[in-house]
Amino acid sequence: MSLFADPLQAFFAPRGVVVVGASTDPTKLGYGVARNLLEGGFPGAVHLVNPKGGRLLGRPLHPTVEAAPDPVDLAVILIPAPAVPPVLEACGRRGIRAAIVASGGFRETGRQGTELEAACVEIARRHGMRLMGPNCIGLVDTHLPLDTTFLPPPGPPAGQVAFITHSGALAAAVIDWARGQGFGFSRLVSLGNQADVNETDILPVVAADAHTRAIAMYLESVGAGRRFVETGRTVARQKPMVALKVGRTEAGQQAAASHTGALAGQERAFEAAFRRAGVLRAEKVQQMFQWAEALARLPLPRGNRVLILTNAGGPGVTAADAIAAEGLRLARLTAQTRQLLREILPPAASLHNPVDMLASASPEQYAQALRLGLDDPGVDMVMVILPPPPMFSAGAVARAMIPLIQTADKPVVVVPMGDPLIAEAVAHLRAAGVPEYRFPEDAASALGALHRRARWLATAEQPPLQPAGKNAAAAARRMLDADTTPAGAWLPPKTVRALLTAYGIPTPQEAVAHSAPEAAAAAEAMGFPVALKVVSPDIAHKSDAGGVTLGLESAGAVAAAYDEMMARLQAAFPQARLAGALVQQMAPEGQEVIVGAVRDPLFGPLVMFGSGGVEVEGLGDVAFALAPLTAADREHLLESTWAGRKLAGFRNLPPADRPAVEEVLARLAQLAADFPALAEIEINPLRVLPEGRGALALDVRARLG
Amino acid sequence: MSLFADPLQAFFAPRGVVVVGASTDPTKLGYGVARNLLEGGFPGAVHLVNPKGGRLLGRPLHPTVEAAPDPVDLAVILIPAPAVPPVLEACGRRGIRAAIVASGGFRETGRQGTELEAACVEIARRHGMRLMGPNCIGLVDTHLPLDTTFLPPPGPPAGQVAFITHSGALAAAVIDWARGQGFGFSRLVSLGNQADVNETDILPVVAADAHTRAIAMYLESVGAGRRFVETGRTVARQKPMVALKVGRTEAGQQAAASHTGALAGQERAFEAAFRRAGVLRAEKVQQMFQWAEALARLPLPRGNRVLILTNAGGPGVTAADAIAAEGLRLARLTAQTRQLLREILPPAASLHNPVDMLASASPEQYAQALRLGLDDPGVDMVMVILPPPPMFSAGAVARAMIPLIQTADKPVVVVPMGDPLIAEAVAHLRAAGVPEYRFPEDAASALGALHRRARWLATAEQPPLQPAGKNAAAAARRMLDADTTPAGAWLPPKTVRALLTAYGIPTPQEAVAHSAPEAAAAAEAMGFPVALKVVSPDIAHKSDAGGVTLGLESAGAVAAAYDEMMARLQAAFPQARLAGALVQQMAPEGQEVIVGAVRDPLFGPLVMFGSGGVEVEGLGDVAFALAPLTAADREHLLESTWAGRKLAGFRNLPPADRPAVEEVLARLAQLAADFPALAEIEINPLRVLPEGRGALALDVRARLG
Repeated sequence: MSLFADPLQAFFAPRGVVVVGASTDPTKLGYGVARNLLEGGFPGAVHLVNPKGGRLLGRPLHPTVEAAPDPVDLAVILIPAPAVPPVLEACGRRGIRAAIVASGGFRETGRQGTELEAACVEIARRHGMRLMGPNCIGLVDTHLPLDTTFLPPPGPPAGQVAFITHSGALAAAVIDWARGQGFGFSRLVSLGNQADVNETDILPVVAADAHTRAIAMYLESVGAGRRFVETGRTVARQKPMVALKVGRTEAGQQAAASHTGALAGQERAFEAAFRRAGVLRAEKVQQMFQWAEALARLPLPRGNRVLILTNAGGPGVTAADAIAAEGLRLARLTAQTRQLLREILPPAASLHNPVDMLASASPEQYAQALRLGLDDPGVDMVMVILPPPPMFSAGAVARAMIPLIQTADKPVVVVPMGDPLIAEAVAHLRAAGVPEYRFPEDAASALGALHRRARWLATAEQPPLQPAGKNAAAAARRMLDADTTPAGAWLPPKTVRALLTAYGIPTPQEAVAHSAPEAAAAAEAMGFPVALKVVSPDIAHKSDAGGVTLGLESAGAVAAAYDEMMARLQAAFPQARLAGALVQQMAPEGQEVIVGAVRDPLFGPLVMFGSGGVEVEGLGDVAFALAPLTAADREHLLESTWAGRKLAGFRNLPPADRPAVEEVLARLAQLAADFPALAEIEINPLRVLPEGRGALALDVRARLG
Repeated sequence: MSLFADPLQAFFAPRGVVVVGASTDPTKLGYGVARNLLEGGFPGAVHLVNPKGGRLLGRPLHPTVEAAPDPVDLAVILIPAPAVPPVLEACGRRGIRAAIVASGGFRETGRQGTELEAACVEIARRHGMRLMGPNCIGLVDTHLPLDTTFLPPPGPPAGQVAFITHSGALAAAVIDWARGQGFGFSRLVSLGNQADVNETDILPVVAADAHTRAIAMYLESVGAGRRFVETGRTVARQKPMVALKVGRTEAGQQAAASHTGALAGQERAFEAAFRRAGVLRAEKVQQMFQWAEALARLPLPRGNRVLILTNAGGPGVTAADAIAAEGLRLARLTAQTRQLLREILPPAASLHNPVDMLASASPEQYAQALRLGLDDPGVDMVMVILPPPPMFSAGAVARAMIPLIQTADKPVVVVPMGDPLIAEAVAHLRAAGVPEYRFPEDAASALGALHRRARWLATAEQPPLQPAGKNAAAAARRMLDADTTPAGAWLPPKTVRALLTAYGIPTPQEAVAHSAPEAAAAAEAMGFPVALKVVSPDIAHKSDAGGVTLGLESAGAVAAAYDEMMARLQAAFPQARLAGALVQQMAPEGQEVIVGAVRDPLFGPLVMFGSGGVEVEGLGDVAFALAPLTAADREHLLESTWAGRKLAGFRNLPPADRPAVEEVLARLAQLAADFPALAEIEINPLRVLPEGRGALALDVRARLG
């Protein structure tokens, strides 16, 4: 029986491994797996299976899985696809609960392969076995060590970053590339076709590793959207994660009925999901690893203020630009720090950030200035620029700074610019675990990632907002159950209005009054201005007939208008039945925004906020978040759009009721989350009144999926 | 006397060089200059000057410049700042027409240094001498060769890219870095304080070099904006240019009076200037050189369609994303190409772009697929992805492809992914002059630069648009001369209207009529609908008095309204003098955009186009171009904004008269270019009518600087 409560744990901690398909031919992949396991230092048992028998690398080749001695917790299978199911069956019977199928020839080759893959999954399920692959290169733990891949040695350098990947080729390339970059890996998992184990399954197992301080992920999609988000959010509270999500081109996205639907899409959903899950999204392979390394090695900054130390102006300006492009700020040094810098630097040095210590800057000056910068309370992070110093060796500068960087509670990154002239500095920095970059832009990018990680952690414990309470869903459910609109069609306006009302989202009020005092009271209750419209089955064109009065601003005016209207109509249309008048709240002037929700096929309900009106799709001033919202999501929606920022007022545009918008966002998100059947709902526009006066959903439409 | 028609030419082709401040102390920079000149292979004469006398590197140290023998066309001066002016004087007297002052201690150190620098310039001017620096590291020509810098050997590797830089430290770092990247330089110029020679002066000299096939520039600003643009535009017709412009942070930008002014700024102006000049703007140091190398080495593509060849899916998807992010497209292979690929690749290979040849892809398969791709008429460029092939050496793959790449008339870039496993491939590719990158993102970025270069060249000969002719300026000049508005204040609406009229930009027409037939004729001439407004010195509130009639749609309606209005007013106000009625064109419904122009302090008149209305500043859907516009600039304004794109119609928004907008843009730009005194002019909104019906400037304001 297995030692492991969860068979997934067996992948990274097997007492023994059996290799099925171990080959004596060194050009075969089955040889590579045996070699990497036997020669890679794996401390557990390794058993090799090949029906031909014989010996390989000093070990016997057992004819079958059954014939291999105990202990075996993990099987690595690299035999032709059609032969895999019986071997899995044998593994299952033996009590093996973790298997890596490295072989190709499954789903990726067509219908027959797909059926074979389904058969493998069925066998695994039956035996309570977890299956990695097929069509993958397996996994590596550099610290145990354990290497189930067939890649030629040397294996990946040891480090603190785990890598989970949907592409085996990328893993092979990155392992090779990392060596020259001074990067290392703690664990590496190639998931192949993900017939069973996917990125979400393996993520907590990888994250639980004590050697892993950051996790990088190459993702082509994710298995189950919300489960990925929940798992990610739990992991991210402990360890930083960076993902490169590829496959952005969304060919054939169908025309959506609402603006929200048209603007949503896989990429928007992934962005919202990563934000919620605390996964930093990288744009490039190299960036992913540069961020992960910085996150693994450096303390997080308390704010976004960066000090730049340089020995030349040009690189300093380049760094300042890069800092600004990352949304970070140049730190403002205190007068005391500037005075102390003045004492150690030549008179022509620039003491304002970027601090230019001039070409003559010595190792001691670099170190002293760095210490002063770290001590300044206005500095959250430091970037040290190190073009080859003309009078000193860059290596000596690096050596002088390393002890300070290693003990600092603020992140410090170093930019040795060059190649042979800074090689010694780079070697020292790498050996000391200090992130270093060839150009300021990459260093700024890494600092930006540290800052975003710190900001995410500050909001990591926020619960979803549920402002409408639990009864709202029950009331809305009754309404929707009573509705007979066919799926896919727009719900009747009355139902949509009632839905909003159940969730406490204000729409313009209306009431029928049968007398002047009733009309006045109704108007008083809903707030001014109001419109008065005759209710009569006999008057078709109310406006033309004088049956509409707009813009009534007081109870008195409403009462007078009621009496006047009735008298006038009675005189003009003596035959008409007059059933009273509709009192309708008129929306005061205000800003207009769009608030909507759609159901994403992968991640479920997604909320949109932005600039409304007819041109919302063209201007694209919108942002998305997963429903229900956290306070941080809501902040993001409002801060990342012009529509949200201008609620504070802009030039001659008066401030609007931002809290009312926050409330509507949270309530609509809750509604969308409560009703998975809701395909789209869109308030366009939401009229946002001046401060303290609320917001009104002027036009709403919704449909079920 | 100098050999050179233009003394600037002497910098790169001196028959002899004199080094003033040559030092026998190897730790001094003055030693470095002498060493690099003498040991760097410079074929001309090198004379060393040091008042102490003696010998250095086998050469005599002459006591003065005068004492050095002929020929001397270039002086390199590296002595303390206060001693520089008399040496320059001596150089001038001797007929030396080109001097590099490498010494620091000038403007960068304060007032005294600034005065010293001015004295140097005065001396140089007096002698017709050009001065490079001070505070620079000099120049290098790797092919002559000539190296006037003090940088430690080895000097920069020879290549085809020239580098002009405002930062000497960056030059030093980049020279060191380039070696490891396989990059080389043809010429390198560090300009220092630019007391005399600036980037615009030296650009044509550098570009004239036969070894230079592309030019990279690190710029902190430019000297004279328009001269840079004109010079750049001339150079760019022959050789590609890439610039990294730093110093984006614009602290203290003053609040501008118009939206155009508020949205303009140094960065917008630089972008517009680079676009006109044909300079590709890079965002990062590394990107600048990667683009420059690709531009120097590869043919330009005929279109934007890229074929991706890969041996694995993941890297192929990553490449496809990167291609899309660059605005390039995946090529669609012809059925014939797909058929031929099918014959050479395994059945499971993917024959749709990205073409995945699978992990088994051999050197022959790579080469054959590349040949088929290059032959396909639907392919403009090729990116070959090369993760370490499991069964073959990456080097063999590279070797198989190189002859095809070298003879192709389409650009091919290669992405060997890894480090040791692809080192041989990289070495072969570099030796063959084939651009190679570690990751698809950088390769896509280089292809994007090639494509933009090709597009720019296609419009390089476009003259500025002058649709209003030359008489417009004369008419406008008379108007502005007659105007007495103080500088900085808004011009009276009547003057602004007249200005627009002079330039043929339509504003709503109006005319005073004194009879019903006159009113009808005027309306007929300007088009319907029109408004009729009484003209009377005695009626203040025309609307309240019944003196305004809107929306008249025919000549008959206008005549009737005229008579009726006069009769009514005569009856109501028997004492009022009725001087007739103003017939005003009413703008029909249409799209609204903003068109404006401001005067940039560096680049002069700059035109803006975008989404108008009150929120133009917040949404920032605007683009800028230098005035007067070329057809390509105008296209850019319309295509890079949503305001421009939606003129074609969008959803239920009908198409608008785009040619009318084009006309207004060109005319307003001409106006702005004709009147440098115009600080700002802004049409907001320009109402764009349905197709064929024109555009009307509904609200315009302008002020002189």
